[in-house]
Amino acid sequence: MSSGVIQCVVLGATGYAGSELLALLHKNPHFSVVKAFGSAEREAIRWRELAPQLAAHSSLMIEPWDMAQLDHVSVQAAFLALPHAASADIAPALLARGIQVFDLSGAFRFHNACDFAQAYGFEHPAPTLLAQAQYMLMPWYSAQAEHSVYAIPGCYPTASLLALKPLVDAGFIQGTPVITAISGVSGAGRGANPATSFCEVSMKAYGVLQHRHQPEISQQLGCDVVFTPVLGPYARGILAVCTVTLTEQGAVTNLQAHFQAQYAEHVLVQVVPAPPAVNHVAHTPFAHLHVAQKESTAVITVAIDNLVMGAAGQAMQAANQVFGLNAYAGLLP
Amino acid sequence: MSSGVIQCVVLGATGYAGSELLALLHKNPHFSVVKAFGSAEREAIRWRELAPQLAAHSSLMIEPWDMAQLDHVSVQAAFLALPHAASADIAPALLARGIQVFDLSGAFRFHNACDFAQAYGFEHPAPTLLAQAQYMLMPWYSAQAEHSVYAIPGCYPTASLLALKPLVDAGFIQGTPVITAISGVSGAGRGANPATSFCEVSMKAYGVLQHRHQPEISQQLGCDVVFTPVLGPYARGILAVCTVTLTEQGAVTNLQAHFQAQYAEHVLVQVVPAPPAVNHVAHTPFAHLHVAQKESTAVITVAIDNLVMGAAGQAMQAANQVFGLNAYAGLLP
Amino acid sequence: MSSGVIQCVVLGATGYAGSELLALLHKNPHFSVVKAFGSAEREAIRWRELAPQLAAHSSLMIEPWDMAQLDHVSVQAAFLALPHAASADIAPALLARGIQVFDLSGAFRFHNACDFAQAYGFEHPAPTLLAQAQYMLMPWYSAQAEHSVYAIPGCYPTASLLALKPLVDAGFIQGTPVITAISGVSGAGRGANPATSFCEVSMKAYGVLQHRHQPEISQQLGCDVVFTPVLGPYARGILAVCTVTLTEQGAVTNLQAHFQAQYAEHVLVQVVPAPPAVNHVAHTPFAHLHVAQKESTAVITVAIDNLVMGAAGQAMQAANQVFGLNAYAGLLP
Amino acid sequence: MSSGVIQCVVLGATGYAGSELLALLHKNPHFSVVKAFGSAEREAIRWRELAPQLAAHSSLMIEPWDMAQLDHVSVQAAFLALPHAASADIAPALLARGIQVFDLSGAFRFHNACDFAQAYGFEHPAPTLLAQAQYMLMPWYSAQAEHSVYAIPGCYPTASLLALKPLVDAGFIQGTPVITAISGVSGAGRGANPATSFCEVSMKAYGVLQHRHQPEISQQLGCDVVFTPVLGPYARGILAVCTVTLTEQGAVTNLQAHFQAQYAEHVLVQVVPAPPAVNHVAHTPFAHLHVAQKESTAVITVAIDNLVMGAAGQAMQAANQVFGLNAYAGLLP
Repeated sequence: MSSGVIQCVVLGATGYAGSELLALLHKNPHFSVVKAFGSAEREAIRWRELAPQLAAHSSLMIEPWDMAQLDHVSVQAAFLALPHAASADIAPALLARGIQVFDLSGAFRFHNACDFAQAYGFEHPAPTLLAQAQYMLMPWYSAQAEHSVYAIPGCYPTASLLALKPLVDAGFIQGTPVITAISGVSGAGRGANPATSFCEVSMKAYGVLQHRHQPEISQQLGCDVVFTPVLGPYARGILAVCTVTLTEQGAVTNLQAHFQAQYAEHVLVQVVPAPPAVNHVAHTPFAHLHVAQKESTAVITVAIDNLVMGAAGQAMQAANQVFGLNAYAGLLP
Repeated sequence: MSSGVIQCVVLGATGYAGSELLALLHKNPHFSVVKAFGSAEREAIRWRELAPQLAAHSSLMIEPWDMAQLDHVSVQAAFLALPHAASADIAPALLARGIQVFDLSGAFRFHNACDFAQAYGFEHPAPTLLAQAQYMLMPWYSAQAEHSVYAIPGCYPTASLLALKPLVDAGFIQGTPVITAISGVSGAGRGANPATSFCEVSMKAYGVLQHRHQPEISQQLGCDVVFTPVLGPYARGILAVCTVTLTEQGAVTNLQAHFQAQYAEHVLVQVVPAPPAVNHVAHTPFAHLHVAQKESTAVITVAIDNLVMGAAGQAMQAANQVFGLNAYAGLLP
Repeated sequence: MSSGVIQCVVLGATGYAGSELLALLHKNPHFSVVKAFGSAEREAIRWRELAPQLAAHSSLMIEPWDMAQLDHVSVQAAFLALPHAASADIAPALLARGIQVFDLSGAFRFHNACDFAQAYGFEHPAPTLLAQAQYMLMPWYSAQAEHSVYAIPGCYPTASLLALKPLVDAGFIQGTPVITAISGVSGAGRGANPATSFCEVSMKAYGVLQHRHQPEISQQLGCDVVFTPVLGPYARGILAVCTVTLTEQGAVTNLQAHFQAQYAEHVLVQVVPAPPAVNHVAHTPFAHLHVAQKESTAVITVAIDNLVMGAAGQAMQAANQVFGLNAYAGLLP
Repeated sequence: MSSGVIQCVVLGATGYAGSELLALLHKNPHFSVVKAFGSAEREAIRWRELAPQLAAHSSLMIEPWDMAQLDHVSVQAAFLALPHAASADIAPALLARGIQVFDLSGAFRFHNACDFAQAYGFEHPAPTLLAQAQYMLMPWYSAQAEHSVYAIPGCYPTASLLALKPLVDAGFIQGTPVITAISGVSGAGRGANPATSFCEVSMKAYGVLQHRHQPEISQQLGCDVVFTPVLGPYARGILAVCTVTLTEQGAVTNLQAHFQAQYAEHVLVQVVPAPPAVNHVAHTPFAHLHVAQKESTAVITVAIDNLVMGAAGQAMQAANQVFGLNAYAGLLP
């Protein structure tokens, strides 16, 4: 679809996901970061001061967001690692400039404008765009129609859907899947917050029966789920523990083989022989998936890095595929 | 039932649970530790060298286990913080000396001898004792009959049963409860082990669909459960996330009020208004329990310290009640 | 000096040190907390909501600070766990009411008013009080004169002075002692702060050659020191590594015996046979001290809990001794 | 010096440093790993099972060490990430085959055979090789003579020497430098060990006044140092805090400029404007160095990753330079 290097901008580049994305883009020879933006209210800052471990060699500046800065540069793609409402506000103007938008927030994940008010607490400012938006859960993506807004799935939904979608789609599940997923603290973002201060972090559930990722997961599966997120005392990674009741057909199927077949072409999703550890995928673009089954019960555990596979990495793969490039450029050596 | 100070011994005193128990016994004016024993193969060691933070002031020695050392001392109670098979082997001889046995292992938790081979991998050497053994989940204990072996519940079952038993007993649950419980590393004991070395510990499920605590929980509830244990990168505490489908009656009941009524007389179990954090109960004898309900789904989260409420603390309360003492001596100021 | 229970108030009770102090006061039968205060700008909050692990059983409210609340209660002692400048501002009015002030801030630690501007960045509002203030490094305290303001040493100075004062006082040191001390994150207080957010905390020196505790240590030793504080990725405790060049007399002295003699009467300072671990003293009122010497070099390592021995615990012992009580009431069982 | 791809083997590939080295070699287009070996006593294991986060894509097997396996392959370089005595035993036979040896252990770091017995507890089996060995502290390396054994510096010495060597060499230091250096737990290696089990790790000094890295540092500086290593509760990285007394000339020199000039050509050593954090260099090949000076005192803090800059990364750079390649191949993108 594309030739030459893709000129791109990153908004929200001071956040954890934005910084990871910059690092992936710098390793990807097909993309060039024309500008990186932080909040309009903050002064410019050198990227490597914020994220020395990612950016030791870079002289990139992260500048205050100002749409006018795009007037005199040619930009084909914008990556938005912004708060949900900010993404929804800014995306239409970028699209109007003919820029493809890869949005890491929740702003374009629902088909239905009504769902935003309940899940994210804001009225969607561009409801007509929702029909054009494409949800980019990568193992299920295939470029059929033209889109212009690409919604990158949330970190919890990515882990949960990798575990459940192959079972639901095959008709192997009855009843309501139960997902208990533990996330490292980087999922809460960079801002100072009493709940994520070092001495206060502790294993703890939150948003019980009311988390915004529950409808995102349900919409993609086409069935209800019980989703309980838990904060854990570590920096990186998500472990999703998914418990399901199998149909008769599911119970007599070798589910490990089913998952292996499902992900045979998707090298980033690895079916592993023992329950996966979060550290084994931390800072990598991989998901590790394990399934145990016994009579009519199956427990699927999936580990991903919340900022790579669960955000910046999936965005990178999405952009690679949308532009017709090697899907894993920037992600694998 | 008793007057004067109870003379007791602790076996397995070098382990984490054994050391916590020594600390509780030292704060309990009704008990006197006559002897503390470690492994028969290890040399004597001063308790405060092993556990300075618990024992700074004590000169207690932990001696190699030798039954003959009990010949010339008067002992009323023995606390066993031993491996399962060792407990099963030693308990009969202690009982034969007229000593009450409080066992923190799994050796006396099943009614049926057959269950041990499957869950713990050994043939029970004293199956006739199982009928006399009393399971000491403290909110449900009331001294009716004379027993001589008291089985202290495991840490995972304690957290899980506090969440589920009041609902099962009331007929509020249909289907199979799903328990995903995260434990700190101290639950794996003190021994050096590649899986619990500092750099290897990482959020990870284990024993999926085959953990030995599943039958213990099922036996006490009288129903099947799906139980998935998860190891987390922190030292102390368990968080059990229990997801259930409610019956019609359960769905129209105020479950928070139900739990408050259930635990009104049990000051160590506190029904809290927000999902509990493990750090809020770490190093304390308390359980914090929270319930969220929505239509026919409820999620109950319980946090306990695995070594106190989940082991030594419940043993302490058990001994207090068996000997007719203040239930909370040694546990509360 | 006193009979009956001492009526006291705690200011700054929502902070980490203030909360620890409340816990010690509640265990101390000689003290009764009449009122606990937080910031004047914050709403009242129940103590056990802030610090469940310390306060599970308490119904104490922490109220917004309002001096008028002291009008109708009898108060003999006030504990101030406040920012430095706030302590300096409030102390005079408390003294004017005849209340003994135990100040955990730096506001009364220097003899000389000029030193405050440089170390703490404020002009001292009550310089005449400095002459009455007594520095309460407990092993060196003996009640000779009447005081009314008691300055509790900082956490870094406590660890450093326990290591160095016995050597300096004996004339065993030549040259400038070098102190590198690592503190857990709770030393930075409870407030949300990007530097102490979970994902940002990392082993790192700070305030190099300009830390406010350097002059406090130098003043107490009567000699210069190089003091480098380091933040470490853990919650509780300080490890001070103190390197000194010995005089000829120091080099031929058995320093371990010298320290043992020094602290023979001070049960909270334990001379230990191997370098101490912070976890062995965390949440306890003890200091563990180890000395290694080789020719004319000695390295003394001291571990304390920054919030107990380094703040609330030393304040508790100070108040016990000022009021003529058992020095360890509330601190030891 | 070389053309074509260098065929190499890695011994000790199951350890943490060996695995990091494999990862760097795989990213380095100039090297090809012909064989990777673990202990002769252990079974073969797939690398990615040991180190999934480094090796997700690799099918490399780590085989039991067997010298005979080298008989039929062409090998130009061997990397030894072995225990000290094992390295000293195996190196001569590799050299006899004409293989260049890059040794990550201490076996070739001293000029003088006598020093090994004291520091490492073994009699050196190949003392004549010591004269040929070249110490590879990379900013000071320049290929003058032919060598065949290359001793990669230890992690503590690397951090310490980067801080001190530019000052000592310039004659800016008087007296004895004091180094207090904190290391993450991965420095202790992969083996299970009670001291590095998750629940036992705690901030703690060790080897005080007797650590084996003290003579290594002193030998390279040509002066005595006091070196105190400290274990910290985190996985990766070293922070060295170096305190020195300056000569008159040192005191009037801008030391930051001095360090910048020293490292101007060495992009992996970055002089930073604020004290460095270990996390900023963790998993990277960089050192961050900060200097503060005040009158005749300077404090230099250096952060490195102990396994990359402090082991595998410096070995990679060493091999690159010995073979006349781009110094940073495999290390920088």
